Amino acid sequence: MNQNLSYYDAFITHLKTSVERKEPLNLYDPMHYILHLGGKRLRPILTLMAADLFGGDYNDAMDAALCVEVFHNFSLVHDDIMDDAPLRRGKETVHKKWDTNTAILSGDAMLIKAYSFLESYDSVKFVALVKLLTKTSLEVCEGQQYDVDFETRDDVTIPEYLKMIEFKTAVLVGAAMQMGAIVANASLESQQAIYDFGRYLGIAFQLQDDYLDAFGDPERFGKQIGGDIIENKKTYLYLKALEFSDDTNRLQLGHLYTISPTDPTDKIQAVKQIFLSSGSAEATKEAIEVFTSKAFDVLESIDISDENKAILRNFGQELMNRNV
Amino acid sequence: MNQNLSYYDAFITHLKTSVERKEPLNLYDPMHYILHLGGKRLRPILTLMAADLFGGDYNDAMDAALCVEVFHNFSLVHDDIMDDAPLRRGKETVHKKWDTNTAILSGDAMLIKAYSFLESYDSVKFVALVKLLTKTSLEVCEGQQYDVDFETRDDVTIPEYLKMIEFKTAVLVGAAMQMGAIVANASLESQQAIYDFGRYLGIAFQLQDDYLDAFGDPERFGKQIGGDIIENKKTYLYLKALEFSDDTNRLQLGHLYTISPTDPTDKIQAVKQIFLSSGSAEATKEAIEVFTSKAFDVLESIDISDENKAILRNFGQELMNRNV
Repeated sequence: MNQNLSYYDAFITHLKTSVERKEPLNLYDPMHYILHLGGKRLRPILTLMAADLFGGDYNDAMDAALCVEVFHNFSLVHDDIMDDAPLRRGKETVHKKWDTNTAILSGDAMLIKAYSFLESYDSVKFVALVKLLTKTSLEVCEGQQYDVDFETRDDVTIPEYLKMIEFKTAVLVGAAMQMGAIVANASLESQQAIYDFGRYLGIAFQLQDDYLDAFGDPERFGKQIGGDIIENKKTYLYLKALEFSDDTNRLQLGHLYTISPTDPTDKIQAVKQIFLSSGSAEATKEAIEVFTSKAFDVLESIDISDENKAILRNFGQELMNRNV
Repeated sequence: MNQNLSYYDAFITHLKTSVERKEPLNLYDPMHYILHLGGKRLRPILTLMAADLFGGDYNDAMDAALCVEVFHNFSLVHDDIMDDAPLRRGKETVHKKWDTNTAILSGDAMLIKAYSFLESYDSVKFVALVKLLTKTSLEVCEGQQYDVDFETRDDVTIPEYLKMIEFKTAVLVGAAMQMGAIVANASLESQQAIYDFGRYLGIAFQLQDDYLDAFGDPERFGKQIGGDIIENKKTYLYLKALEFSDDTNRLQLGHLYTISPTDPTDKIQAVKQIFLSSGSAEATKEAIEVFTSKAFDVLESIDISDENKAILRNFGQELMNRNV
């Protein structure tokens, strides 16, 4: 964990010197703003960690880490417009602080800047990194589109939902780690393995987010408990509950997901009760286990020292043991 | 011109086979829609022409041409949101036919697809093409931001205006031609020269657009004559008129650019009169000449046959002799 803190500090230093205010200010100030709002910086840290564990110098992976973080923030800026979200990390979103047009255009510029940060690498690495960024970015857009589409569909299947969170969230975690591996000259097999490790962990992480939204510790979970339920969001918990419920509970759950009461306390309580009684809560915990295990299984095949495997395993375990 | 028609036909065939409908439909249908709306396909044709004139096979430049066209259409989709434009090439814009969120996300995917079409090139060309796309894209965003900023500024200078149209419009014309040169293995000097040729021609073309908006033949100009005047758009004509006018005319012009009468006939007539009497119309024609000449001067330094230089010169002349 100490090493993760050095990754964090080194990355923040790099970020500060690489993303500066410049003209035209209305294009670059929002970029500067969102990138300095804080956050765990999980993805860039994973890039640095992967470079380190594959025997590279993690300082060489700084620009790849920056690419990942800038791309991630591009997706946040545009997603926040689409969700009309007022807040991001407790501060005003870009389209609220400026306006929608500014958020569209500065988001576009961030996507392009993500590509530009890869230009510090030699040709062989540049080609590999750019192709990975392109593939991943397109999948993230597809994942976001599926997420939007699911809002108005009532026949979303579990495999569809898993594909959506894989594309929207998990592939970028995988790509972040693979970028570190590319910078460290890891073999194609190792690159694929660390990508899969990140991808499986990303899916597990998102499923855990679904679970904690309903059953997390309100003292420790950063967001309001039941937020997904209030918004009638069709999470893994919801889809599994529909699958497991008898007709009566299915009708009741369907009804609860059409209403938006001013005081949502009773609704949240009723939905959570169905999640528990239907076995959906338990099934979600099992799915988290399954994808975490898949990640750890992949780890075995990677050509790095047992010590480094243990570091990755511990990182995954810490991530999955969070109650927050 | 016959050759330009073969470029056009070959490009359309390539476009049809390369941009297909696929899942998720709400992401890819808008892309398919805008790319098949028609248009002159000026930029991709320039890519093919440049590859041809530098001794390459223009068929090898098809994916680069596609990259340029898809990028251009990405910028149209996002610009149309920002301008709240209802029509594009006489058909509904993407954000009107679908909605703003769909236009944002499918625009993002188009920007990424532009990069993906470059993946068919070998590493050396891929690196050069990607870096050119990144530099150009960022400049196009900056140009768009300056254009937006100028709407609310009353102290825009001529150099600022020229930089805006260079970034927003001309650099992509230059990049389109340079991409063809890259595919044809042209030297770096030739690449720079054909880029500058396209860039100067692009500036001249945009200045001519400003001019024709007020003084074009209404029978032949595709858009409503005086559209820029109705929208109080600060074009080269307007900025030069302000510069050349005495205080009385400057006040009158400033006033005319604050009103939006239901019947704009008198306003258009009055503004055009100031454009003519101030010398601004003549100065704009001269500026078009200056940038066209710059383009032709650059042409001399390019290492291609005199016959091929004549083809580029004729192309430039035809473009600049349009009254439409």
